[in-house]
Amino acid sequence: MAVTKGTTISLDAMGGDHAPDVVLQGVQIARSRVPDVRFLVYGDKARVEPLLARLPDVAEACTFFHTEHAVQGNDKPSQVLRQGRDTSMWLAVDAVARGEAGGVISAGNTGALMAVSKFVLRMLPGIDRPAIAAFYPTERGESVMLDLGANIECSAGNLVQFAIMGEVFARIMLGVEEPSVGLLNVGSEDLKGPEAVRGAAAILRNGDLPLRFHGFVEGNDITAGTVDVVVSDGFAGNIALKSAEGTAKLYTRFLRDAFSSSWLARLGYLLAKPALVKVKMRTDPRRYNGAMLVGLNGVTVKSHGGTDAVGFANAICVAADLISQGFNDKIKSELERVKSIDDDSAI
Amino acid sequence: MAVTKGTTISLDAMGGDHAPDVVLQGVQIARSRVPDVRFLVYGDKARVEPLLARLPDVAEACTFFHTEHAVQGNDKPSQVLRQGRDTSMWLAVDAVARGEAGGVISAGNTGALMAVSKFVLRMLPGIDRPAIAAFYPTERGESVMLDLGANIECSAGNLVQFAIMGEVFARIMLGVEEPSVGLLNVGSEDLKGPEAVRGAAAILRNGDLPLRFHGFVEGNDITAGTVDVVVSDGFAGNIALKSAEGTAKLYTRFLRDAFSSSWLARLGYLLAKPALVKVKMRTDPRRYNGAMLVGLNGVTVKSHGGTDAVGFANAICVAADLISQGFNDKIKSELERVKSIDDDSAI
Repeated sequence: MAVTKGTTISLDAMGGDHAPDVVLQGVQIARSRVPDVRFLVYGDKARVEPLLARLPDVAEACTFFHTEHAVQGNDKPSQVLRQGRDTSMWLAVDAVARGEAGGVISAGNTGALMAVSKFVLRMLPGIDRPAIAAFYPTERGESVMLDLGANIECSAGNLVQFAIMGEVFARIMLGVEEPSVGLLNVGSEDLKGPEAVRGAAAILRNGDLPLRFHGFVEGNDITAGTVDVVVSDGFAGNIALKSAEGTAKLYTRFLRDAFSSSWLARLGYLLAKPALVKVKMRTDPRRYNGAMLVGLNGVTVKSHGGTDAVGFANAICVAADLISQGFNDKIKSELERVKSIDDDSAI
Repeated sequence: MAVTKGTTISLDAMGGDHAPDVVLQGVQIARSRVPDVRFLVYGDKARVEPLLARLPDVAEACTFFHTEHAVQGNDKPSQVLRQGRDTSMWLAVDAVARGEAGGVISAGNTGALMAVSKFVLRMLPGIDRPAIAAFYPTERGESVMLDLGANIECSAGNLVQFAIMGEVFARIMLGVEEPSVGLLNVGSEDLKGPEAVRGAAAILRNGDLPLRFHGFVEGNDITAGTVDVVVSDGFAGNIALKSAEGTAKLYTRFLRDAFSSSWLARLGYLLAKPALVKVKMRTDPRRYNGAMLVGLNGVTVKSHGGTDAVGFANAICVAADLISQGFNDKIKSELERVKSIDDDSAI
């Protein structure tokens, strides 16, 4: 874990299925990993204060701000933009814009978080839309994928921007020196796939960008770890991610059935348990909780709405890491570098 | 297995990574399950005849036709349509059009098989494009998904047609009385997703069609078995399927690592092995090999190009089942029924 001294994170305490409990219990768990991080907590005092009273060590790390309203799961982003300025989500994001926090975390309504972050924090120069980026386990280690659901339809230019941001993300957060980047498609041949994907490949292939472009990858390449960064529109990316999650769940279910199918299998399970627990840990979705909205002028981390305290704690560590690594400054200077190359090549 | 007496299947012996060996070994394995099926085998005599000589029981069930040419994996469909009339694939499909075979199987170039089948067999009345449909294992049993890669971009009308065909497919092949149908999307709310998906939902929701429409489903619903039929465009569908395959492979790899990580784990594996073999069988991709191109005026089954003889044998059983169940006649009469409902509601 990087140095996190002086880092402050603002929290939307009212976002997610089990808020605010999971949020504050998440802080409690995260504290052993990021002891120096301070938290600005936005939420309803009737719900949050009793929790803080029960968790004195959490209360010590938090500054609490009462908010009257909370964004609901089915609120439309446009409605939140018009009427949501006094919600816990908005105020938590605004703490980043005001410079009081280095980053914000919410487990609430993804569309609203996107819209509010875009409005309040603004986009980085040269980026049109934010994308949701996250890590996932592969046969070779870990890779980054984006967009995981922010942008249903994307142009070739959007996909190229995602590729650049994903590459910086992998470099900084995974420590890969020259991350390889692949475009998600249904085949590896040049002529395959939707126009936007083929157009993005043409731009990435011409080599003007300082980026190691692998070419097209397919759905099975995601977990194979064929590339360090998988780039996709938010529709296919979200479906790929959730299809993988579902398959992992199916496997776990089949294994549980198998191990309880006979006395011998149960005994076998007990003997192999320490090794199997490691598999469970390696694939635990909570370990991968905490997706970043990249492309914004500030660190916004989205936690899964249904996660538990362990998962929320992981999102806190992701945010702390992004902030202390200066991710946003790095991506900004990278975008400027790409722009200057673009300008040169235009001459 | 249904009655298959009198069923004839034509085979493109030259399609796939391990052709023609896997094709003829597949026939050998399938014979115990469909002993009455006869095969018309199209391929290069220099490659096929020595195999038939070594497999006399296969030769007995086959009528062999020498073909000079074979479609290659990277041939463009348009090129095959212009110049491919003497290929093993074309002649095998044509056997269905001529009424000599009840269905055709190829493990070759998917785009070419689609194009040739569409040209030679024609579409069913009311269907604009064929879709690739297949079964997959779920937490509740088995479900059907389409399109798995034939149509990169789809209109709302295309998706509705896929929904109707998928419903009939599930009814006939899975024996589900009133199959539920879901549209693959990134959320369950009405306003989510691309225009075509929302448009298809609006048509399916109005209730004029004789079909149990569940609404939107997400990537994790696929293996959860939330619905009997998952409908998607071919881009997202293919990526979802391959992402699931990749995840299954990752899990298998992690488990193998775990079971070989210590003596105790190895012993545990041995004790649980009979139960674990069942899991392997339940999730064996070969068991699900054999996707149907639905919407054509004839049974065309696509085998995975990289499958082995066991997988190819499964594709043979799928084709035999579709033919003996009279799948194509049933789907035709179902489409007429839908059409008459459409006509009524237009009044």
